[in-house]
Amino acid sequence: MTDSQKHIIGLVFYPGMTSLDIVGPQQVFSALPGVQIHRIWKTLDPIKTDDGMMVLPDTTFENCPRLDVICIGGGLEQGAVEDDPEILAFLRKQGSTAKFITSVCGGSLFLAKTGLLFGYRATTHWAMRQQLAKFGVEVGTERIVIDRNRITGGGVTAGIDFGLTIASILCGEEVAKIIQLLLEYNPAPPFDVGSPEKAGAQLVDKAILFMQGISSLEVAKQAV
Amino acid sequence: MTDSQKHIIGLVFYPGMTSLDIVGPQQVFSALPGVQIHRIWKTLDPIKTDDGMMVLPDTTFENCPRLDVICIGGGLEQGAVEDDPEILAFLRKQGSTAKFITSVCGGSLFLAKTGLLFGYRATTHWAMRQQLAKFGVEVGTERIVIDRNRITGGGVTAGIDFGLTIASILCGEEVAKIIQLLLEYNPAPPFDVGSPEKAGAQLVDKAILFMQGISSLEVAKQAV
Repeated sequence: MTDSQKHIIGLVFYPGMTSLDIVGPQQVFSALPGVQIHRIWKTLDPIKTDDGMMVLPDTTFENCPRLDVICIGGGLEQGAVEDDPEILAFLRKQGSTAKFITSVCGGSLFLAKTGLLFGYRATTHWAMRQQLAKFGVEVGTERIVIDRNRITGGGVTAGIDFGLTIASILCGEEVAKIIQLLLEYNPAPPFDVGSPEKAGAQLVDKAILFMQGISSLEVAKQAV
Repeated sequence: MTDSQKHIIGLVFYPGMTSLDIVGPQQVFSALPGVQIHRIWKTLDPIKTDDGMMVLPDTTFENCPRLDVICIGGGLEQGAVEDDPEILAFLRKQGSTAKFITSVCGGSLFLAKTGLLFGYRATTHWAMRQQLAKFGVEVGTERIVIDRNRITGGGVTAGIDFGLTIASILCGEEVAKIIQLLLEYNPAPPFDVGSPEKAGAQLVDKAILFMQGISSLEVAKQAV
């Protein structure tokens, strides 16, 4: 595939999605030569993400063209929309023709609920591995899992590694390397606790309680 | 400072800003206990970021309360607003009382132009180090530079390390660790080219040409 060919990439937006799940890959994709990005939701009304920022979709499910890459992320309040028939129908429809069916973080659960990950290996946020496994998915704990044309990333920040991986597949390794350099992606996490395996059981338990606290707070804020 | 005290954090938005510069720290900050985040611009009208996403500010320069932490990021089109007197006046005013004056990526150049970094060590995106040095700033090449109450991060993705560092300062190491785990920040960059030192001169030259290409493309798109 040459640079002059257009890659049509769709990012599914929804209320309560995690901004960083989507903005990580979006920042990478937007730098790709010959790319067209669609930010897709039921309407073009503003959406509140789970970090409180308001964002505007630019494409509706109805007027979205056929996508080469479809991507959905997770969110603290994804439970509220995970079974939404319109979202699942859109994913199923685009998934039947897309070249790549992809997700970051808890986004894999939407794909799993459509059946698009049945019989595939995939990954998700560490806190959702058990849930994902219930849908006939072989759950990997790697940061990125590629199984045929399903490409799934782990939790939140994995979206950057995921985006660069897809950049490399679509436009070649050199373009992906240039984008990695431009995004100065030379990470230096302040602590070595970025996975449950590294963090240990005690911190994992605290993180789950902490997350439930944020989540109920966010749900309360959304309801106002 | 205890968790029940509110930290008022302001993120300056502007047209052409890099989404990921701001969303990295924003995702971290939004998880902090007792935090209030303001997304600030001249008006509440939608803003187009440099990856093409539309976002909505929620606070204007005029009605912004006194901030504990002020933060500004960079952007491919930051040159168009870098000398905007309203932005610089806002930064100067808030900078005179804020507990922490901070930036990610090219955001340091705005701070430098107000004089807020004069005589300080600070960092920026690797491509802007020379520009920053012209403003009486001692430019560091580390990913995060802390000099008294100035905290600056390197390019784009450094915002995540930066956000976690500030989380640790505001709310303690355990909270920062929990957030790192929740964001599954266990990076696995696909290539080892995330800094100019690692990438080498040839890739750096290509990246600069590539960036200039994106930049002029984006400026053209904005003008439409």
